[in-house]
Amino acid sequence: MPRLNHVAIVVEDLEAALPFFRDLLGLPLARVADAPAEQVRVAFFPMEGGEIELVQPTDPESGVAKFLARRGPGLHHICVEVEDLDGTLKRLREAGVQLIHESPLVGSDGTRYAFIHPRSAFGVLVELYERASGA
Amino acid sequence: MPRLNHVAIVVEDLEAALPFFRDLLGLPLARVADAPAEQVRVAFFPMEGGEIELVQPTDPESGVAKFLARRGPGLHHICVEVEDLDGTLKRLREAGVQLIHESPLVGSDGTRYAFIHPRSAFGVLVELYERASGA
Repeated sequence: MPRLNHVAIVVEDLEAALPFFRDLLGLPLARVADAPAEQVRVAFFPMEGGEIELVQPTDPESGVAKFLARRGPGLHHICVEVEDLDGTLKRLREAGVQLIHESPLVGSDGTRYAFIHPRSAFGVLVELYERASGA
Repeated sequence: MPRLNHVAIVVEDLEAALPFFRDLLGLPLARVADAPAEQVRVAFFPMEGGEIELVQPTDPESGVAKFLARRGPGLHHICVEVEDLDGTLKRLREAGVQLIHESPLVGSDGTRYAFIHPRSAFGVLVELYERASGA
């Protein structure tokens, strides 16, 4: 069954946002890390019930930076885990859904992922993760 | 520890959105219900890792309808469960955080909840649920 992996929030300044999410809401900060391949810096709050991630763009030309400039800070995307990413993308494509990535990308930890265009997803930027087999 | 309870997506037409989320993404639709007190109709997709909810406004004067008119369909709010809602609201208020509800509301199932204004939450509309004791 699909699983909600995380919700991503775009912020201008990660350090400025941490006190609200960590200290006032009490969310459990696990780590802050640069993700140079995605041109962002990310704060991870893993929780029962899915992770919240704060994402700060580190390159003004990146997609996240352009989103921030256009819409301001706030909810950016949701990530849903699926078991068969290739099969899911095939099904979506055949239904005429616009994908941002026609073929899955591979993250630094080996996770295969792809994004669906919000135009085809009722305004929501949807990331699909392939769940590691056996996980 | 806080828990991500759900992510809400506002849509214009719930029936039109169901095929994408249920059939193409494969999310498990549990039920569709009217929530007259909140002036919305909601489709619930409970999942391991938190629930996704599609929310269609049913009254053009409601807050959700105004959000939809202003920003279009898309991610609307996240809901975080806390153990002590009164204590959390007190801490937030003392820190100068703007609350939409100064005192908790009570949902039809008895859940106590309140919203934080996105102005104080980096552009994110944050709902706080009080976890039922023993849950």
